[in-house]
Amino acid sequence: MRMVDLIAKKRDGYALTNEEIQFIINGYTNGDIPDYQMSAFAMAVFFQGMTEEETTALTMAMVHSGDVIDLSKINGIKVDKHSTGGVGDTTTLVLGPLVASVGVPVAKMSGRGLGHTGGTIDKLESVPGFHVEIDNDEFIQLVNKNKIAVIGQTGNLTPADKKLYALRDVTATVNSIPLIASSIMSKKIAAGADAIVLDVKTGAGAFMKELDGAKQLAKAMVEIGKRVGRKTMAIISDMSQPLGYAIGNALEVKEAIDTLKGQGPDDLEELCLTLGSHMVYLAEKASSLEEARAMLEKAIRDGDALETFKTFLRAQGGDASVVDDPSKLPQAKYQFELEASEDGYVEEIVADEVGTAAMLLGAGRATKESTIDLAVGLVLRKKVGDEVKKGESLVTIYSNTEHVDEVKQKLINSIRISPNRVTRPTLIYDKIS
Amino acid sequence: MRMVDLIAKKRDGYALTNEEIQFIINGYTNGDIPDYQMSAFAMAVFFQGMTEEETTALTMAMVHSGDVIDLSKINGIKVDKHSTGGVGDTTTLVLGPLVASVGVPVAKMSGRGLGHTGGTIDKLESVPGFHVEIDNDEFIQLVNKNKIAVIGQTGNLTPADKKLYALRDVTATVNSIPLIASSIMSKKIAAGADAIVLDVKTGAGAFMKELDGAKQLAKAMVEIGKRVGRKTMAIISDMSQPLGYAIGNALEVKEAIDTLKGQGPDDLEELCLTLGSHMVYLAEKASSLEEARAMLEKAIRDGDALETFKTFLRAQGGDASVVDDPSKLPQAKYQFELEASEDGYVEEIVADEVGTAAMLLGAGRATKESTIDLAVGLVLRKKVGDEVKKGESLVTIYSNTEHVDEVKQKLINSIRISPNRVTRPTLIYDKIS
Repeated sequence: MRMVDLIAKKRDGYALTNEEIQFIINGYTNGDIPDYQMSAFAMAVFFQGMTEEETTALTMAMVHSGDVIDLSKINGIKVDKHSTGGVGDTTTLVLGPLVASVGVPVAKMSGRGLGHTGGTIDKLESVPGFHVEIDNDEFIQLVNKNKIAVIGQTGNLTPADKKLYALRDVTATVNSIPLIASSIMSKKIAAGADAIVLDVKTGAGAFMKELDGAKQLAKAMVEIGKRVGRKTMAIISDMSQPLGYAIGNALEVKEAIDTLKGQGPDDLEELCLTLGSHMVYLAEKASSLEEARAMLEKAIRDGDALETFKTFLRAQGGDASVVDDPSKLPQAKYQFELEASEDGYVEEIVADEVGTAAMLLGAGRATKESTIDLAVGLVLRKKVGDEVKKGESLVTIYSNTEHVDEVKQKLINSIRISPNRVTRPTLIYDKIS
Repeated sequence: MRMVDLIAKKRDGYALTNEEIQFIINGYTNGDIPDYQMSAFAMAVFFQGMTEEETTALTMAMVHSGDVIDLSKINGIKVDKHSTGGVGDTTTLVLGPLVASVGVPVAKMSGRGLGHTGGTIDKLESVPGFHVEIDNDEFIQLVNKNKIAVIGQTGNLTPADKKLYALRDVTATVNSIPLIASSIMSKKIAAGADAIVLDVKTGAGAFMKELDGAKQLAKAMVEIGKRVGRKTMAIISDMSQPLGYAIGNALEVKEAIDTLKGQGPDDLEELCLTLGSHMVYLAEKASSLEEARAMLEKAIRDGDALETFKTFLRAQGGDASVVDDPSKLPQAKYQFELEASEDGYVEEIVADEVGTAAMLLGAGRATKESTIDLAVGLVLRKKVGDEVKKGESLVTIYSNTEHVDEVKQKLINSIRISPNRVTRPTLIYDKIS
């Protein structure tokens, strides 16, 4: 087999066999196939796509390019959730304790990553003392005991995906449904998930700007899951405006606490209940989605979800008293209000622009070397559809510097007020299973 | 400017500006742009094509990536001929002396290259004593004096093209009209041609198997020539079967001599007169194609073409007596006849298979390190459309080994006999100017 022939085969629109895809991924991982052939191949895939069989073969070849986590010592069906990413996405912080509180085991391996805010681990480290430096045995014991634990990424998971993603990033081949789908699914499968709930975002703040593309991506991932025996379903949810109100690390932890208390933003709560219901159902802790949702609503009402969160924080060294007194979370020195310049209705809040404003404050990482300021960020006071009076606050800026002109300007540019009444955007566009 | 953005722009079907293409070619030549970005770009070009403006910009960027030969000290309009390559293509050996004999300056820079037989220089080295180790001044003096000289490749011509071609070869991105057209034209322009006559081959033995692709390539190259002020025209000629009878180095020199005497194969003579007429016309040595053709026919009839060939050989150290006594050319030890196994008409002679058979004998290079046997090769005794009787020779095999079973088998597989009368294929399909 020669790589140049396989590139030509894909270029000419033919489907590759399982063996051919394994040859490519193994060769690329061990260095036999150079970057310049892989990037030409990725561009051919961009134009010609891949069949479901090919995408599945690619996923599993990437899974087996490195370590595969064994979670078999954890009791129950391990359901993992994955979001394609957006702005102010606090769902993971809420969902973990929420579904754990009704008995779904949450064995979360998480990262730091680049973005508008930190990753899940960064956010949790806002809680004084909390750490993820636990070993694998302790991790498994904690999940079995408390139903929830978080660990940093261990082992050499999907090295083929890491290498290929870095290459795609600099060769304009990121935006290909089969390549995105196999990248996401390979990581979830290598991390040991039995079942997977996907939150595919669409809109200005999402990777998939168009609903149609988001649906295609969701279908591709659900299909991979089916073909490799992992129950998988996907929600298509809105990311035209930020989710919830908070964008920032400690600010999102506080918002998660509010939501676990039943006092969070409506959209965040609704999305968590929807995703959570599917997780509970796939974990076979409820016999219907309705039953699952009722269990989660009860867990919030009764305080079980909040209690689970406290237990989880304590078990990993965290000061659980932040749950009752969020002022113990890192606090920014300065607060500024961005005031509305006219009466009207909020027509648009461009999510990724707001996210960039948060990153300018120091809430996220632009490069791997950036350090995160856990205290800073933004809290929206209005969302799309809300009425607003001139002088009312649209956004509170939490900053550790007094110089926030650039941030303010970015926010002004990203929020549009209309004189006419505006309909709230749909939160959940579709479910695919 | 970032290469990743330019890849994305081409991927999405937009035309690049002249400055963007210069950025790409300069960056690639000096190593700032890595192979893996260039191969992704080439694949994007494969799918999205290039406008005439882009292809021209690419050509000129590659021309200026290295040295440009100055032929201004040679009197007259320097017309270069280029063939896209085929099997048994003896046209260059014939055309050089033929057009030189009517006053067209032929300043030929040539290479050795890979293929079924050697390059023009290898073939000419069949003539005892002939060499191309002359310096630039001598080269120019010889052309001014004899109207023809051949020199090996000097200087650092189109390094961008060399680097890009090597990359395309291993990334399945060779077969792109704008990339082929700019590669060929950049080399001709860098080599100092004022005008260019192109012989674009089509058929089984050609790079462009389909007539339509050959026409597109021809049009793309003619358009580049126009845009950069080089009078350019193209012939589309047949390469479904080998051109002429001989495939081999010394064997082709002998065939060229025959043709210069007016005793060559009909198809080779006709193609040389057609290409030659255009060269004479573009060099402004005749005021019409008809007049140009009459001049060339007269040069053959009167012996001027043959005399020019002798003068040319002598001027570069060659033994010109081979022209009168071709047995002084390298001779193979053995001759074998491939006999027809049935009566009928020759229906097909698959050109590239026959070429491979010649290479198996040692007539060509499979890799740069291969050494060529100048004596060996094949001479077809029948061409498509000829009647043949069982036992008659179809091909004479000239070999320096007695073991030619593999060669014979290849030839048997590539020649098909039909019981029915067969029409001779069209030799010249089209002219594009």
